[in-house]
Amino acid sequence: MAIMAAIASSPSFFYSSPSLQNSSLSPSRFSCSASSSQPHHGGRTGFMDFPYVSGPHKDLMVDLVSTVENRLDSFLNPCSLPPDVQSYQNETGTAHAAIHLRSGVQSSLIDFMLGSWLHCELPSGGALNITSLSAYLNSSTDAPNLLVELIQSSPTSMVLILDLPPRKDLVLNPDYLKTFYEDTHLDQHRQHLEKLSEVRPYFSSSLYIRSVVSPTAILMRIETERLEEMIQTHVTPIAKDVLKTWLDVCAFGERTVGETEKAYLRKRDDMSKSKTIEIDLGSNLPRLFGQETANRVLEALREVF
Amino acid sequence: MAIMAAIASSPSFFYSSPSLQNSSLSPSRFSCSASSSQPHHGGRTGFMDFPYVSGPHKDLMVDLVSTVENRLDSFLNPCSLPPDVQSYQNETGTAHAAIHLRSGVQSSLIDFMLGSWLHCELPSGGALNITSLSAYLNSSTDAPNLLVELIQSSPTSMVLILDLPPRKDLVLNPDYLKTFYEDTHLDQHRQHLEKLSEVRPYFSSSLYIRSVVSPTAILMRIETERLEEMIQTHVTPIAKDVLKTWLDVCAFGERTVGETEKAYLRKRDDMSKSKTIEIDLGSNLPRLFGQETANRVLEALREVF
Repeated sequence: MAIMAAIASSPSFFYSSPSLQNSSLSPSRFSCSASSSQPHHGGRTGFMDFPYVSGPHKDLMVDLVSTVENRLDSFLNPCSLPPDVQSYQNETGTAHAAIHLRSGVQSSLIDFMLGSWLHCELPSGGALNITSLSAYLNSSTDAPNLLVELIQSSPTSMVLILDLPPRKDLVLNPDYLKTFYEDTHLDQHRQHLEKLSEVRPYFSSSLYIRSVVSPTAILMRIETERLEEMIQTHVTPIAKDVLKTWLDVCAFGERTVGETEKAYLRKRDDMSKSKTIEIDLGSNLPRLFGQETANRVLEALREVF
Repeated sequence: MAIMAAIASSPSFFYSSPSLQNSSLSPSRFSCSASSSQPHHGGRTGFMDFPYVSGPHKDLMVDLVSTVENRLDSFLNPCSLPPDVQSYQNETGTAHAAIHLRSGVQSSLIDFMLGSWLHCELPSGGALNITSLSAYLNSSTDAPNLLVELIQSSPTSMVLILDLPPRKDLVLNPDYLKTFYEDTHLDQHRQHLEKLSEVRPYFSSSLYIRSVVSPTAILMRIETERLEEMIQTHVTPIAKDVLKTWLDVCAFGERTVGETEKAYLRKRDDMSKSKTIEIDLGSNLPRLFGQETANRVLEALREVF
């Protein structure tokens, strides 16, 4: 799961965006262009700088990451990724990414939190910018994880993914559905966005990703000339509220989990991670950053989870 | 599950239709009106008559039901429902329904097939017409079930539900996802409909129902002045193809299921049935047909599954 939301959430876009759906058929089409049309901030740009996205987009991400780190601070180890994994780019400087990964301390419910951004110039002249924040709980609790992702492929188009992916089969566990999805009224946010004319539902082209998300998942494509205003007015308050729900009900909620169930959770979490890696990474990471960098990043992440 | 697709699929609409979403807040609003604005065909109307829907809608349902009965004929017992459950109405004659239920013979993979239609005059002057066909497999196989439902609330608006609901947790079983949903290319139909301007995604207001369906589920609202043409041109070929996939890959597919897995399937199927009954029936069936008729229908159905 870590990889999904960090590196791979980014390449996952290549598989899941309707507008880029042919990428899996024609990989070369989505290699980053060799020409650089935008200034770069070099390898030392920090994760929290979000250097390539708009003000409201950056403000939202900084707010979400800060909130998680403030609330969970005592449960999180410092980020121990090597500097060349915390920030890395391709040889031509047309693709640039940052990762921020903090594992949970042993006694906590936190497996890890993971933030990332990715910038990649497109052959068309525009750029793809993805920012994400996710947090994963360990098998001491069965509560849902957190997944936030903003995927911007043009100045007027953005895919928003905002969800608490469940960690159990909801058909077999209606009480779990009630606790985390019905009683929390999470669907009101999806319903609010659904009513806006600039917004329409987004379907990932990966059926596995569609299976991983919850029934209240916000999977939306926003298309508007006033994207920054949309982020400020609609996306930001909703994302903050979903995060608050996750913190209050999931990260700090008390759940009793027996040994059999712990084994089940580990099995399901592991399957979800490995399958997501398979779907998301494929050839995308090497394609964007070259094999050497891809290996380095992957190896560093694997050490942590 | 039987109840869901027979009686309850109908009342499920009252919970799940966006346009009627307030029904759960104001049950009396959706009692059928006492005035009859349309001729009735009496209690003897047969299931296969589909007397209240358009020609293309009826043709589609007759085609689907006939195809299932022809292919599965030797595996199905005759319908043994009492006549006053095979067709029933309310006291004022404003609500009328029919059910066709055939259980599978002992040695088969079929639990039962279930067809139904429901007609109900609306206080607004229009009518609600629901037709459905579903088929459920037993624990000798883990293959998906079949669910087809057309819910027409006005001459220009229809909700289409077309799915093979999975019987296992797809996150934990990616091979299952591949076999039944990826390799069968079921998503192409959803993608085709998604492109039509008259069609938009439909979200059931029941989060449990959203959890029950597959990632390739067609859950669409069609709004057009030319609904009959839409049914003929787009809905009919897709529904027939989905049914063909279900028959070839699920009903006649060979699956090895161990004893532990059979117990799991029974548990999940039972949970799904009982939860769906709870969601769907609630007060809807008594409200539409009166308590006495509701009890009679429910009791007859319960005897079979």
